[in-house]
Amino acid sequence: MLGPDLVADPTRTTPDVELLEALLDQGRTADAVGLLVPLHTADAAAAITELPPEHRAVVLANLEPDLAAEIVEDLPYDVVVRTFEDLDPEIAAAILKEAKTDTEADILQDIPEERAEAILARLDVAEAAIAREMLAYDEDSAGGLMGKEYVAIPPGLTSREAVRVLRSRRAEIREFPVGYIYVVDSHGKLRGVVGLRSLLLCDPDATIADLMNPQPVTVPPTMPGEELVKIFRRYHFIAIPVVHDDGRLLGIVTQEDALAFEKEESDEELLQISGIVTGEELREMPTLQRASRRLYWLSLKIVLNVAGAAVIAKYESTLAQMAAIAVLLPIVSDMGGSAGSQAVAVSIRELALDRVRPKEFLEVLGKEIAVGLFNGLVLGAIVALGAWIWKGSPMLAALAAIAVGFNTILAVSVGGLLPLVLRRFKFDPAIASLPLLTTITDFCGFLLTLSLASRWIDSF
Amino acid sequence: MLGPDLVADPTRTTPDVELLEALLDQGRTADAVGLLVPLHTADAAAAITELPPEHRAVVLANLEPDLAAEIVEDLPYDVVVRTFEDLDPEIAAAILKEAKTDTEADILQDIPEERAEAILARLDVAEAAIAREMLAYDEDSAGGLMGKEYVAIPPGLTSREAVRVLRSRRAEIREFPVGYIYVVDSHGKLRGVVGLRSLLLCDPDATIADLMNPQPVTVPPTMPGEELVKIFRRYHFIAIPVVHDDGRLLGIVTQEDALAFEKEESDEELLQISGIVTGEELREMPTLQRASRRLYWLSLKIVLNVAGAAVIAKYESTLAQMAAIAVLLPIVSDMGGSAGSQAVAVSIRELALDRVRPKEFLEVLGKEIAVGLFNGLVLGAIVALGAWIWKGSPMLAALAAIAVGFNTILAVSVGGLLPLVLRRFKFDPAIASLPLLTTITDFCGFLLTLSLASRWIDSF
Repeated sequence: MLGPDLVADPTRTTPDVELLEALLDQGRTADAVGLLVPLHTADAAAAITELPPEHRAVVLANLEPDLAAEIVEDLPYDVVVRTFEDLDPEIAAAILKEAKTDTEADILQDIPEERAEAILARLDVAEAAIAREMLAYDEDSAGGLMGKEYVAIPPGLTSREAVRVLRSRRAEIREFPVGYIYVVDSHGKLRGVVGLRSLLLCDPDATIADLMNPQPVTVPPTMPGEELVKIFRRYHFIAIPVVHDDGRLLGIVTQEDALAFEKEESDEELLQISGIVTGEELREMPTLQRASRRLYWLSLKIVLNVAGAAVIAKYESTLAQMAAIAVLLPIVSDMGGSAGSQAVAVSIRELALDRVRPKEFLEVLGKEIAVGLFNGLVLGAIVALGAWIWKGSPMLAALAAIAVGFNTILAVSVGGLLPLVLRRFKFDPAIASLPLLTTITDFCGFLLTLSLASRWIDSF
Repeated sequence: MLGPDLVADPTRTTPDVELLEALLDQGRTADAVGLLVPLHTADAAAAITELPPEHRAVVLANLEPDLAAEIVEDLPYDVVVRTFEDLDPEIAAAILKEAKTDTEADILQDIPEERAEAILARLDVAEAAIAREMLAYDEDSAGGLMGKEYVAIPPGLTSREAVRVLRSRRAEIREFPVGYIYVVDSHGKLRGVVGLRSLLLCDPDATIADLMNPQPVTVPPTMPGEELVKIFRRYHFIAIPVVHDDGRLLGIVTQEDALAFEKEESDEELLQISGIVTGEELREMPTLQRASRRLYWLSLKIVLNVAGAAVIAKYESTLAQMAAIAVLLPIVSDMGGSAGSQAVAVSIRELALDRVRPKEFLEVLGKEIAVGLFNGLVLGAIVALGAWIWKGSPMLAALAAIAVGFNTILAVSVGGLLPLVLRRFKFDPAIASLPLLTTITDFCGFLLTLSLASRWIDSF
């Protein structure tokens, strides 16, 4: 929830990043930091993001640790990780002590291990123990996404007593993300959840045990992030408690954390569909790293292209006799790829929305064949007309119609099915569908076009 | 915020959709509806979504209007719109009266106009006036996304008095989305915002005027949804008040509404990138409609393909003499398309994350040329090696290296730039980048390959 100090003040404006950079270049760190302190943390974070990487650690190191920690929450995550690699472990530890526990664990997980150990050695024992506990969870699981920032009260209190407890912890609670209180017994087991709103609106003598929901939905720390997102999307919870097998409350995942995770996943998906296989490429990364991440995929594409090329090579003599066919091949390939990728997109989206199940491939196949038939007929007719006008050959026109038409039907059917089949066998449809699709459609399309051409060669 | 009744009860389970469908087929509507009533609304919505369209309106019509309205909030939006087209206007009006105002306006906007008018005529005067006011805003603006579900109190009260007001409206407030109270003067102008948490934790004699944040961030009803999403992403607000030019509070947009809007936009983007230009295709739509939506794009691709085909046709005599070149063309085309679309994905993502500005095209160009050079050299070498092994011709190998290498460099540079240029000229980079890219790279790649081949033809 939003405290007054978290509201952006319209009189504060974003500073001139060039001025900031000039001050830092001249070593006038205190002046530069002085420009950032009065800003909303989100605006300060935006300015720091635009600075050259070497200045970012200097700025963070010269802010008060609690302000630095707030700014860290607003920085893009890749900037945070790179900056923490540069920070003095003493200063990094001071900032992480003030940061949210899930952020702390994420950073410690993603920086080089000896750096992380150096920072952990500088945290106090309790803090380091929590950090190590968090590090044990997979970053993309409920355990990795949860935070330790929640209020727990015992079940025996009245509403009035609970409010008194909360008031005594006012400063701390203000910073906490959401409007729930967790009812936890002396063994640390979760007994129920009370909304702040209920506490505000109820009779002061009501007991917490009466007010609380004794059967809240909980998740285990091992639940994968994708599952968690589905629960948030379906039930619109604002936060979900993460509970150990034995019933102990471990932390809470907020809707915001879950949706930020989902957003990251979908950003990554765009890159993966385009064949950037590992992680989130940004132009700030070193060129060699960026080039080699992309090359991985392009090398695979070369291998896949060999299938199509081999088909064409096999019909070299046909092409020598009838070079017009070579004009047709890229059209067959491109129309198949385009029509098929539309079907891929619909399937990927329907899977993501839970509107189709991986086993429903017969229904999908039927529907896509219908669409493919219609579009294949229309596209085949258009290309045939073009071929006829160009060469005046009805046989070439017929060949064009059959090649483009059949390949479109095939591409649409295969494109619709592939994501379902891949999901069924636990592959990520976003990564693998398009390359498989183009390989299959090029191979079949070229084979069809060229084998027909070689058979009809004397009739053209 | 989540009331206890909104918590999914683990003892309730999703019903057997086949049983549900069988009951509805037999006209046993009451029995079918009886299976849905005890469920969490999200689970009931999931079951209704899986029913054949003709049964959905029957089910909704036979539920209590307030329960139907809650289920409507959880149904996929395309299902809601189609179902409201089938509902009796009397029943539709009864359900919409209980629904959230932004949902009501969205539905009335997206069903056929005479249907909407028939429903509006059956709402009471005040309700219809609010609906018409909401209808005046663009669906994708702050006005279209906002709801009227908020609590307003006058500024003169003490905290104790404010709590008394809230208690008297307890039932209504429970259903409201977030933990804020809006301080509004006698002219309806927004004076400040108070968090429920502050109200709970403060001294009961504190005045609302002291507790409130007197300068909350507000947005005008005309603000586009994309801008709104950026504000939510940047400042992590849970809700933002929508305020008229004259200072009157019109409604509030919640973070959840804004993020749902963003999610819809990004789902739509996946389809647009694949060339499904209008709206969100689902397999439930009639085949002819789905096919023609896709055809629009495919027809454009045919026209664009003519550019590449024309280049190949021009060199027909070269191809007849040296059919091996035809094997190379699809590889040149596919490597260019693949390498370029990686650069497109990075640019689109950096634009979305505000990590690059549309005017920074010189920086982007420099960085992409570096990546293109590296990958172009490697890919060119691989293809050249393949060509050499295949035909034993060093000239063919050189041609392959130059064609694939240069085309990759070109494709990566163009792919990186196109989204920035398109955004600069207010086109949507997600839609237009890939087709323009493949047209440019095919045209240039074919021209380069074939013109070199025709010049070197005697050396092979």
